[in-house]
Amino acid sequence: MNARPRVGLIGCGRIGKIHLRTLLAHPERCEFAGLVDSNEGALRTIAAEYRLETVSTDISTIFDDPTIDAVIIASSTETHAACIEEAARTGTSAFTEKPIALDLESTDRALAAVHWAGTRLQVGFQRRFDSGYAAAHRKIADGELGTIEMIRDAMRDPAPPPPAYLEKSGGLFRDMTIHNFDCVRWLKGHDPVEIFAVGSALTGDEVLAAGDIDTSIVTMRFADGSLASIENSRRSGFGYDVRTEVFGSKGAIHIGDSRQTPVRHLTASGVREDHQYFFLERFKDAYEAEVLSFLQAVVSDTEVEVTGADGRAALRLAILAEESRRLGRPIAAGEVANGIDSELESRMTISA
Amino acid sequence: MNARPRVGLIGCGRIGKIHLRTLLAHPERCEFAGLVDSNEGALRTIAAEYRLETVSTDISTIFDDPTIDAVIIASSTETHAACIEEAARTGTSAFTEKPIALDLESTDRALAAVHWAGTRLQVGFQRRFDSGYAAAHRKIADGELGTIEMIRDAMRDPAPPPPAYLEKSGGLFRDMTIHNFDCVRWLKGHDPVEIFAVGSALTGDEVLAAGDIDTSIVTMRFADGSLASIENSRRSGFGYDVRTEVFGSKGAIHIGDSRQTPVRHLTASGVREDHQYFFLERFKDAYEAEVLSFLQAVVSDTEVEVTGADGRAALRLAILAEESRRLGRPIAAGEVANGIDSELESRMTISA
Amino acid sequence: MNARPRVGLIGCGRIGKIHLRTLLAHPERCEFAGLVDSNEGALRTIAAEYRLETVSTDISTIFDDPTIDAVIIASSTETHAACIEEAARTGTSAFTEKPIALDLESTDRALAAVHWAGTRLQVGFQRRFDSGYAAAHRKIADGELGTIEMIRDAMRDPAPPPPAYLEKSGGLFRDMTIHNFDCVRWLKGHDPVEIFAVGSALTGDEVLAAGDIDTSIVTMRFADGSLASIENSRRSGFGYDVRTEVFGSKGAIHIGDSRQTPVRHLTASGVREDHQYFFLERFKDAYEAEVLSFLQAVVSDTEVEVTGADGRAALRLAILAEESRRLGRPIAAGEVANGIDSELESRMTISA
Amino acid sequence: MNARPRVGLIGCGRIGKIHLRTLLAHPERCEFAGLVDSNEGALRTIAAEYRLETVSTDISTIFDDPTIDAVIIASSTETHAACIEEAARTGTSAFTEKPIALDLESTDRALAAVHWAGTRLQVGFQRRFDSGYAAAHRKIADGELGTIEMIRDAMRDPAPPPPAYLEKSGGLFRDMTIHNFDCVRWLKGHDPVEIFAVGSALTGDEVLAAGDIDTSIVTMRFADGSLASIENSRRSGFGYDVRTEVFGSKGAIHIGDSRQTPVRHLTASGVREDHQYFFLERFKDAYEAEVLSFLQAVVSDTEVEVTGADGRAALRLAILAEESRRLGRPIAAGEVANGIDSELESRMTISA
Repeated sequence: MNARPRVGLIGCGRIGKIHLRTLLAHPERCEFAGLVDSNEGALRTIAAEYRLETVSTDISTIFDDPTIDAVIIASSTETHAACIEEAARTGTSAFTEKPIALDLESTDRALAAVHWAGTRLQVGFQRRFDSGYAAAHRKIADGELGTIEMIRDAMRDPAPPPPAYLEKSGGLFRDMTIHNFDCVRWLKGHDPVEIFAVGSALTGDEVLAAGDIDTSIVTMRFADGSLASIENSRRSGFGYDVRTEVFGSKGAIHIGDSRQTPVRHLTASGVREDHQYFFLERFKDAYEAEVLSFLQAVVSDTEVEVTGADGRAALRLAILAEESRRLGRPIAAGEVANGIDSELESRMTISA
Repeated sequence: MNARPRVGLIGCGRIGKIHLRTLLAHPERCEFAGLVDSNEGALRTIAAEYRLETVSTDISTIFDDPTIDAVIIASSTETHAACIEEAARTGTSAFTEKPIALDLESTDRALAAVHWAGTRLQVGFQRRFDSGYAAAHRKIADGELGTIEMIRDAMRDPAPPPPAYLEKSGGLFRDMTIHNFDCVRWLKGHDPVEIFAVGSALTGDEVLAAGDIDTSIVTMRFADGSLASIENSRRSGFGYDVRTEVFGSKGAIHIGDSRQTPVRHLTASGVREDHQYFFLERFKDAYEAEVLSFLQAVVSDTEVEVTGADGRAALRLAILAEESRRLGRPIAAGEVANGIDSELESRMTISA
Repeated sequence: MNARPRVGLIGCGRIGKIHLRTLLAHPERCEFAGLVDSNEGALRTIAAEYRLETVSTDISTIFDDPTIDAVIIASSTETHAACIEEAARTGTSAFTEKPIALDLESTDRALAAVHWAGTRLQVGFQRRFDSGYAAAHRKIADGELGTIEMIRDAMRDPAPPPPAYLEKSGGLFRDMTIHNFDCVRWLKGHDPVEIFAVGSALTGDEVLAAGDIDTSIVTMRFADGSLASIENSRRSGFGYDVRTEVFGSKGAIHIGDSRQTPVRHLTASGVREDHQYFFLERFKDAYEAEVLSFLQAVVSDTEVEVTGADGRAALRLAILAEESRRLGRPIAAGEVANGIDSELESRMTISA
Repeated sequence: MNARPRVGLIGCGRIGKIHLRTLLAHPERCEFAGLVDSNEGALRTIAAEYRLETVSTDISTIFDDPTIDAVIIASSTETHAACIEEAARTGTSAFTEKPIALDLESTDRALAAVHWAGTRLQVGFQRRFDSGYAAAHRKIADGELGTIEMIRDAMRDPAPPPPAYLEKSGGLFRDMTIHNFDCVRWLKGHDPVEIFAVGSALTGDEVLAAGDIDTSIVTMRFADGSLASIENSRRSGFGYDVRTEVFGSKGAIHIGDSRQTPVRHLTASGVREDHQYFFLERFKDAYEAEVLSFLQAVVSDTEVEVTGADGRAALRLAILAEESRRLGRPIAAGEVANGIDSELESRMTISA
């Protein structure tokens, strides 16, 4: 394989621009091969700003170009699965933003395409590439915590997204909690056997109107008796809140930082610090690291660190949580039918 | 009322000795009137160490002494209710360690005695007198957090208690989580309408043998849709862990400290601090403050800050949690019959 | 020696009351023998509040009482030396607040009296009994920091004292920096060989009028080339600031805490904590510990942990600093004449 | 001016590579025009890694190219002044790493060349572009601290540099403390009127052999009576230590972070965090921000944020400190002759 893969990018929205910067800033790791976005205005603006030569609104300019080795899929959620299937068809390694799709059927079709084509698919759970989460995972793997007995994983956004976003989001569990589901199963090394979810709409009419919730607690039980708890809110009131605590038989690890600027201000009325406002600041380095890791897998022809199976498993937990909330009772992991065929399933262990 | 009430103490175990020191250290607030303990050896040791003159193994020396205004009940759990009833009978103000009893029937009998005698009863939920919890409660009451939307309350002991303790403890929820139940309902200002509890025995055979659990997560839902989560463990592996986070529409409050000694040690292998090991260190000041608050209520003839009704309500939540765990499903707050008569119930709002 | 020494107290001002509480709260460690204060009004108020029976305005009631084993001297600075001499004359162990006196001559007379009487004298440098400072000292002694290369010691009061206090204080270096001088030489284990001091009056006319300064930096050099820096201010603007950093060849230790209440408040405008306001809160436990340590020395007939020689050495550094500031140049430690006779001097090593 | 200036880079050592990445990662802000380094091997390696086309060992390829708008000078210290003069001669905007030179004469010659050519020169004091330092400077400028009364500025490297580096470094004050001198005068808004410096060689024979020191404290006094203290060490033993505290009449600001990875590990033997090891991690974002700020000044034809005059003033303080240490006494700021002519001097106020 080319030691410097040619990489195409699909989508130049908020997260697409972040990946664009990563590709441009690392000429030693890849060659930027072109940008595709269906929004021609946005495309032209980006092309002018970054002096990009190869831009198009036609996705075939990427998939029909045999010199392109890999693609970053950062377009809107409903296009992910089709792009993944197209990448599989053309033998292109693909990195996709989460989720693969909002339902298991589409997800399974995409994963099957990748499976039978024998291509590569990485899902954008960027937390795993944060230095804090990575260090925690390493310590757990090294046995420094003993047996894992409880995980507490919290994630809060500063303010609810606009109604248009809510509508297409797939609901709180598929859109937001999915990061927590991936995080918990990755740190624990297993999927839970039981899920119980409660949730409410407390931030306003938009969420209620969308039939969604904005505040939730999910409790999970694992086969070995260990437990996990996930807290979510669409509106923290103070900024972006991502903290995880892992408790083991030998001690615990707390992951998370809150201060954005390294300053403390001491006054007669107390001491003040600022707080990280959004995920873009908190995970700036992780967004770069996940793409570099993907490029490394492409170059060295190895498995990616976050597989399609991981993406599917997190979605499945989101669906179970939704079901539990709807029914008002705990759900056993086996209660939601698993559409994927058994050969695929056998590959679907947790990437660690 | 005497501006300096005469106070008797029942029990000179671990917590009894703490209360003894408080009484002796505050001659400006009370007059120490005598100590009773059924263990004659312990009694003699304490009497010699502290030069106590009035000690006895006979509880009637306290209740038959008309000059005694108040009593601190720090004897073993199974004696609390009888002591409370005796205090009520003799018109003595009583402060009792938690729980009042391990079942609602005994609790109700004790509360009824206090109610009909018109005496005073304070329950030893010392957290409420910790400067951190008190400040949080004040900020919440002042509306600084807006509407409370989620509470996360964690409590972990460094190591499991001995089997003999477990046997008489009434189980994790009545013995340990009861503090969290009180804390959550006090901070929220309401009782939950639904509880779901999961738990496991992960620390060893002793807990299993006692039919108990040592690790649990309790999820609660309130009538206004707000949520709460309580985490417990009998064995943290690193020390005493008591932290509470309250999330409101306008921001959040984190309560809790972990460092025991104000020292950070910076070395080539990282930075090290110590950690509080036990509740006696964490709540040293709160144990003193709750007794001083009780004495103040006695002197000024006002209601105590933590009532018998609070003690009963926390026990009821513990029983509901136990039932939820047994049944493997959420329990509505009304599902456990409420033996207390309606006149009493009407008095049983949350002390705030 | 009596396992429970009878202790008299001289002075019931701010710090005297703190020591009074310690004596009353520890009947197992001492017997409170009486209080003397020249202010009859204050004396009566305290006597009534704490139900004290033996109080007097006449100091001889303490020194003429042969049953009194020890005395705590917490009266105003100008009386310390005379009380110490009286204690020496009557064979009474003495604990004195700092400083022994404001000049070396009076100090030497008091120390000589103690020396020739063979009695016991402890000076109230309470920092040494703070758990943080004690832990740091232990780690240094254990070699965990390697060779000590630099010490930074900061101390700031929230607001300047009243003019009346300033007038009798002896100036910033003797009144405030004296704690830092003791701290640095105790942690380092040596006296410096050179001192350079700069200072200014920045907080207002009162300090200028008193011919004093309120803001200063003192730099010290030790014979082994290691360095130290002391920062002081009479007005921090935010509370009480006591922090010490010790840097060695193998790492560093930071001592100090700032938060009073274990609460963090997260809002849209940032994160807020409170700050300790005054030394009484910061060193509450240390004030108790130093007196208990003194009582222990009395009971076990051993040397105290902070000797008169330590008190004298800190005063000498304060005088050197003052001289350096006056002359505008560094002062060698030998430049200020040493009035004490050589036999005493030979005993005057640093207590560690 | 071109909205996207063409920028040449001189030097591809440690810091040169950092600036190279910044230039390559920001095609929207500049066009990378070529790299020059006298070391052909290093040059070829870098060219291959980053697919650079225009590289040369001949510096005239940059200065003879009329299409080049700006140059980043990251070569070794002794070449800075000549490159600055060449940039001035050819009308090229220049960003130079600190220091401009190790003596005032060369510095003045370079500044005069820039002055008479009317070109632009920025000096690489990156701290000013750190979000923490920038926020502190802003708060001070906004009067949030009131009058600045004391500044404490500390900087420690984890381990001493190799002997070859020490030899050409110009000594601790010119090489390391120069950052602190810039920082203190920038935060205070004035130069001090008096400096006193002490220093020692404590880390080993190499420093002694180089006639240098590795541990120092510099004390400064300003005309308004305010004070500052700078601590330096070549060997902290625990990592990179950069912390600054500014104390004003209304409160204080602490600048600095120490943790590299957002993880705390809680064990039975205490709580552990890691520590930033080196300046490259601590100031990663600041190195990028200072170059982007320079490019912005080029594009908008405005003054840079850190001028040549700032570079000269910091060097002058370093020379004063050295002289103070040599003489063993404080030095007044006027004591070191100022070779620069008066017209230049009049421009040399502090950039703020």
